[in-house]
Amino acid sequence: MSTLEFVLVHGSWHTGECWDEVKASLEAKGHRAFAPTLPGRGPGQSTDVTMRDYADAVAQFVVAEDLAGIVLVGHSAGGTVVCKAAEQLGDRISRLVLVSPLLVDSGSALTDAVPPEYAGLFAHMASESSDNTIMAPWEVWRDSFIGDAEETLARKAYERLCAEPFGPVSEPVDLEAFAAMPIAKSYINCTEDVVFPIGEYGLFPRMYQKVAPCRLVNAQGSHEMMYSNPHALAEALVKAGRP
Amino acid sequence: MSTLEFVLVHGSWHTGECWDEVKASLEAKGHRAFAPTLPGRGPGQSTDVTMRDYADAVAQFVVAEDLAGIVLVGHSAGGTVVCKAAEQLGDRISRLVLVSPLLVDSGSALTDAVPPEYAGLFAHMASESSDNTIMAPWEVWRDSFIGDAEETLARKAYERLCAEPFGPVSEPVDLEAFAAMPIAKSYINCTEDVVFPIGEYGLFPRMYQKVAPCRLVNAQGSHEMMYSNPHALAEALVKAGRP
Amino acid sequence: MSTLEFVLVHGSWHTGECWDEVKASLEAKGHRAFAPTLPGRGPGQSTDVTMRDYADAVAQFVVAEDLAGIVLVGHSAGGTVVCKAAEQLGDRISRLVLVSPLLVDSGSALTDAVPPEYAGLFAHMASESSDNTIMAPWEVWRDSFIGDAEETLARKAYERLCAEPFGPVSEPVDLEAFAAMPIAKSYINCTEDVVFPIGEYGLFPRMYQKVAPCRLVNAQGSHEMMYSNPHALAEALVKAGRP
Repeated sequence: MSTLEFVLVHGSWHTGECWDEVKASLEAKGHRAFAPTLPGRGPGQSTDVTMRDYADAVAQFVVAEDLAGIVLVGHSAGGTVVCKAAEQLGDRISRLVLVSPLLVDSGSALTDAVPPEYAGLFAHMASESSDNTIMAPWEVWRDSFIGDAEETLARKAYERLCAEPFGPVSEPVDLEAFAAMPIAKSYINCTEDVVFPIGEYGLFPRMYQKVAPCRLVNAQGSHEMMYSNPHALAEALVKAGRP
Repeated sequence: MSTLEFVLVHGSWHTGECWDEVKASLEAKGHRAFAPTLPGRGPGQSTDVTMRDYADAVAQFVVAEDLAGIVLVGHSAGGTVVCKAAEQLGDRISRLVLVSPLLVDSGSALTDAVPPEYAGLFAHMASESSDNTIMAPWEVWRDSFIGDAEETLARKAYERLCAEPFGPVSEPVDLEAFAAMPIAKSYINCTEDVVFPIGEYGLFPRMYQKVAPCRLVNAQGSHEMMYSNPHALAEALVKAGRP
Repeated sequence: MSTLEFVLVHGSWHTGECWDEVKASLEAKGHRAFAPTLPGRGPGQSTDVTMRDYADAVAQFVVAEDLAGIVLVGHSAGGTVVCKAAEQLGDRISRLVLVSPLLVDSGSALTDAVPPEYAGLFAHMASESSDNTIMAPWEVWRDSFIGDAEETLARKAYERLCAEPFGPVSEPVDLEAFAAMPIAKSYINCTEDVVFPIGEYGLFPRMYQKVAPCRLVNAQGSHEMMYSNPHALAEALVKAGRP
């Protein structure tokens, strides 16, 4: 089996560290993996950032490391980030892998793609915050994001979350150039993902349909299975990322 | 991992004995489990019972055993029973776990929640019976309830079924008080459950949507996986029931 | 556990050889398995065939081998073939097993049951061919048919494909007699099957609904899991085929 090079892009509230165990698991299988942190999160970082800043950060990371033929992976809102970054990276990408992604139609914002009650909650949180950021409430995190983990792990992961800048979440994203790119894609469906209730606003199959036809890989776990089931996610990434 | 106390409430045609192997499996993992039998079934029992009788029986069992901090589990129609019982048990419950449940909106009957052809069949069966009871036909049982078991096991389980009083199945259930309770819930989706055909009247995700947002745990098996795959169900119960 | 006799009917572009590993796996479990090749494919075969020819070939095979009490299995378009063949075989069949089947309503053609863009593509391919045949494009094969295989296996399986006669795919199929037969059925859902995009034209649960109520068995793999996960498919066939 060929060696793959993964660039793993995290979703909202996370940093590159969320991939630590997945990265170790991929490396143990003989692959290489990188997990940059998007701007706007962590101590001392300005939260006044844009989706373009995110995409630039990913593209600059790939260019700075001089990577080519990569499997570019985006989790959750990171799915939209990698689509936008792909517009700059073109042929450096062998395949895009979307893990329980939150994707938007070009011209829409992430807040247009989430259940209306969440969009309202996030807007309220951002306006109440001092720095235009939002946070996932513990109860929602526990059962809707990471219901498959023991409570101790759920708490540990929760404590690692950062406030998420609301700007990139609420601004319309132009993906016209991406839509025209003939790029191979795979979709990892985390089968216990209920980050949004199943149905009209559920991630799956709604997001899958945005990128179909596309390879589908199922992985048993919640939206946060990089914490709760990292080895299964690493296996799914290999199945999703290989040629 | 903490020790959990489960109270397992069976569904239609069953008694507490249906949980025997699941109970043993939970106990082998260090947990405690109780499986009371609802009134109205078995030799010498009057079938003139109500949903309130069911809920009272569960509540009285929990109080008599002086249990607190329990994981209250309801399977199939037992899902509605535990919702109703929760109205009386309040803080004695740490979490409600619904296993392939048949749930109703407050003011509706279970027969309103099943496919119309089943509702008609049940009403006809009850009117033809001498004691207002219904039974699952063997062919339906074999392929729609327990299609994942070997035939011998399917027959053995079928022979243990009791006639089900039709009263609690066909009476409207008031769940206004339950709907207002802020109780943590988990949902176990038995992934090969086709007790009702997938689609408009399928259990999943229709019943999940009634209780979302809610932790989701998938378990591979049919509606009757307490017989066909009891260890997997016990594992799912632990994942669903823990804090 | 009783010994089962399987007759395995392949789908479009395949021959009986596609079942080689599944057949070996079933035999290793103590069962018997046969995998005839439908007419109209392979060197020297006329591609001027009909759905009736397919059904006759299956029925004649079963009669010639003097098989009875068989589990008749149809994969993909082979699902429609076994329904049509069942009209002739009647009591020789103990159970029909449909594996990710493409089924039609009586009076419709297979092309009526596929996404319109595929129907258009196939009609165009057939008219451009010298012998009224169609082929699955590599890119579609790779990610939509067999996305769970390593690329080497995907290519090897692709190289074994035959041109598929378009006649049986585009002619209306009369299944009135089949619809009236009280025949036990099981459905194997390959959980990573995205041969048609999930949703309006996805195989599952659309095809399941055509045969429900019916035993459901899930098997993890793509549409072509006879290549990518033959042992899991063999296990699923036993669960689906037993009484």
